[in-house]
Amino acid sequence: MLIGELGEKGLIDRIRKKILKGSSLKSNVICGIGDDAAAFKSTEKTTLVTTDVLVDDVHFVSGTIDGRDLGYKSMAVNVSDIAAMAGLPRYAVISLGIPGNMEYSFIDSIYEGMIEAGARFDLQIIGGDTSRSRNLFIDVTIIGDVEPDMITKRSTARPGDRIYATGSLGASGLGLTALKAGSMPYPDAVERLIKRHLRPPARVEEGRMLARAGATSMEDISDGLITDLMHIAEESRVGFMLQEELIPIDIDVLKKSLAVSGKKPLELALYGGEDYELICTGPEGLIAEYEKRANQNEVVELSEIGMILDRDKGCVISGVDGRVSQITDLGYDHFKR
Amino acid sequence: MLIGELGEKGLIDRIRKKILKGSSLKSNVICGIGDDAAAFKSTEKTTLVTTDVLVDDVHFVSGTIDGRDLGYKSMAVNVSDIAAMAGLPRYAVISLGIPGNMEYSFIDSIYEGMIEAGARFDLQIIGGDTSRSRNLFIDVTIIGDVEPDMITKRSTARPGDRIYATGSLGASGLGLTALKAGSMPYPDAVERLIKRHLRPPARVEEGRMLARAGATSMEDISDGLITDLMHIAEESRVGFMLQEELIPIDIDVLKKSLAVSGKKPLELALYGGEDYELICTGPEGLIAEYEKRANQNEVVELSEIGMILDRDKGCVISGVDGRVSQITDLGYDHFKR
Repeated sequence: MLIGELGEKGLIDRIRKKILKGSSLKSNVICGIGDDAAAFKSTEKTTLVTTDVLVDDVHFVSGTIDGRDLGYKSMAVNVSDIAAMAGLPRYAVISLGIPGNMEYSFIDSIYEGMIEAGARFDLQIIGGDTSRSRNLFIDVTIIGDVEPDMITKRSTARPGDRIYATGSLGASGLGLTALKAGSMPYPDAVERLIKRHLRPPARVEEGRMLARAGATSMEDISDGLITDLMHIAEESRVGFMLQEELIPIDIDVLKKSLAVSGKKPLELALYGGEDYELICTGPEGLIAEYEKRANQNEVVELSEIGMILDRDKGCVISGVDGRVSQITDLGYDHFKR
Repeated sequence: MLIGELGEKGLIDRIRKKILKGSSLKSNVICGIGDDAAAFKSTEKTTLVTTDVLVDDVHFVSGTIDGRDLGYKSMAVNVSDIAAMAGLPRYAVISLGIPGNMEYSFIDSIYEGMIEAGARFDLQIIGGDTSRSRNLFIDVTIIGDVEPDMITKRSTARPGDRIYATGSLGASGLGLTALKAGSMPYPDAVERLIKRHLRPPARVEEGRMLARAGATSMEDISDGLITDLMHIAEESRVGFMLQEELIPIDIDVLKKSLAVSGKKPLELALYGGEDYELICTGPEGLIAEYEKRANQNEVVELSEIGMILDRDKGCVISGVDGRVSQITDLGYDHFKR
């Protein structure tokens, strides 16, 4: 059935039923969908709020993406922002703009993916809004919380801090290239890369452990390692030096990126974006502290990749050959594309 | 300058400066714009969250509306939802979808209107997201709070309760008609009606006083008196009877709607929508309790307009002639338009 035939009331009724069926209302939710505003009991922690909007033709192409993946991703990218503050996600409100000639089944599958992500990250959809729109857009706002002494901002990196990154980089960027190109060599590896692009991680556990281990600042990698690290540099009024040979490049990117995309592995790791790993700064030895805490939990590896410098030293990268070069911000800008 | 030339970073830098210039950061804000998520100190109250999205060609027409009015309205309609829960608005996060060929000055004026509304309703913009989009959309999420024992849901009306409405109805609907038609008789009255449509009230003080006076359920009028009252009926599993002669119709609507729009005043008051007054239910005598509390504050008048019935009595309206007729929900549905 088309959205235009279903109407707003029919659409909201279906969404509401789907969400209530997919998860039982948490005990601290006082009002869910169906009132003027959602309401929940406050905690003594610091409240976190983040919003990320995904727009058709900019962040995805609606004819080529599975609705479930799209719904999952729209939640995961927001959860990743909460993770970067060392917080836990709690609640989501969702605004959707939908073309009238879109099939309801596609919207339905978007919500299935959102509910799946909600279950994965232990957060609940408690409200939202829908409207007709020329192009599909999905705006997710997530509310979370964090212990006041654990919050990890962008503005608190200090010269002398080491720079760390979780997991490995470049897979999402190569996955996107493969997704756009269609058929590819190395189908198994490519399938993994594409999945990595469509269903990004959100390093919630890692974020919390990094904060407990002593991280001084943190951010998630959405625009690309360089661009996001430059945010930290700008907000903290510092410079930095990355060491090329320390960047943790995804194994399939390392071996196959030239064949799949013609791009150098390092380029994808530095500028590819959408890895949704965490970068943080902290004292020397943070890895040992992180691993000590990781003992009982499944978390990804942490790598030291560089150092925070005084602001006047600028933002540089030292190559394998020892040569140091100024970094240019080539990160993604969807307005200028 | 066009948005496409300015780029995302340039755009966000300007927005951030504008917002910081327009208001000093509240002391309970820990992180504002410029981090992965905004952060603020929690209170012991119940937290409220609401989101309302405005889309070009659906909720407004970008060539015909002043950016300041649009920004103001996008905030006010959300504040109205918080008011309907008897809460106070505190923080806003804003997602904008912007065509690349749009002039920056228009976006700038939208934020001016938002900042103006923020000052008017004592709330702060603390975060957001921007993206390229084929059509302009503005998604505002407002976080507020309310004392746990004051929250006014839609689902708690009881048979025997009286129904009340703040202010007067129909002005926004007639203003919209006039706005679409261009030149009009009664220019002064029409200007007032249009302003009422573009800069709706949000009855925050009234909502709080109604809750204190003993309101049992509450909602704001966005879709239209009938449609919104039907939400209360549905959520509370009750019926209702409205009394035609008690509906508070705006004075200019009463006198001029036939000449301006060809529509009957009562039709605009019942179905016009976007009045952003409050409807509530409560015991007989609520008006006296409300007026007692209103003594020191500037609030709009409250009218009794009907009664909550058992569910099996349905939703009816009694005419001036005493005839009782079944109500049809003719409210606005932008998907079906």
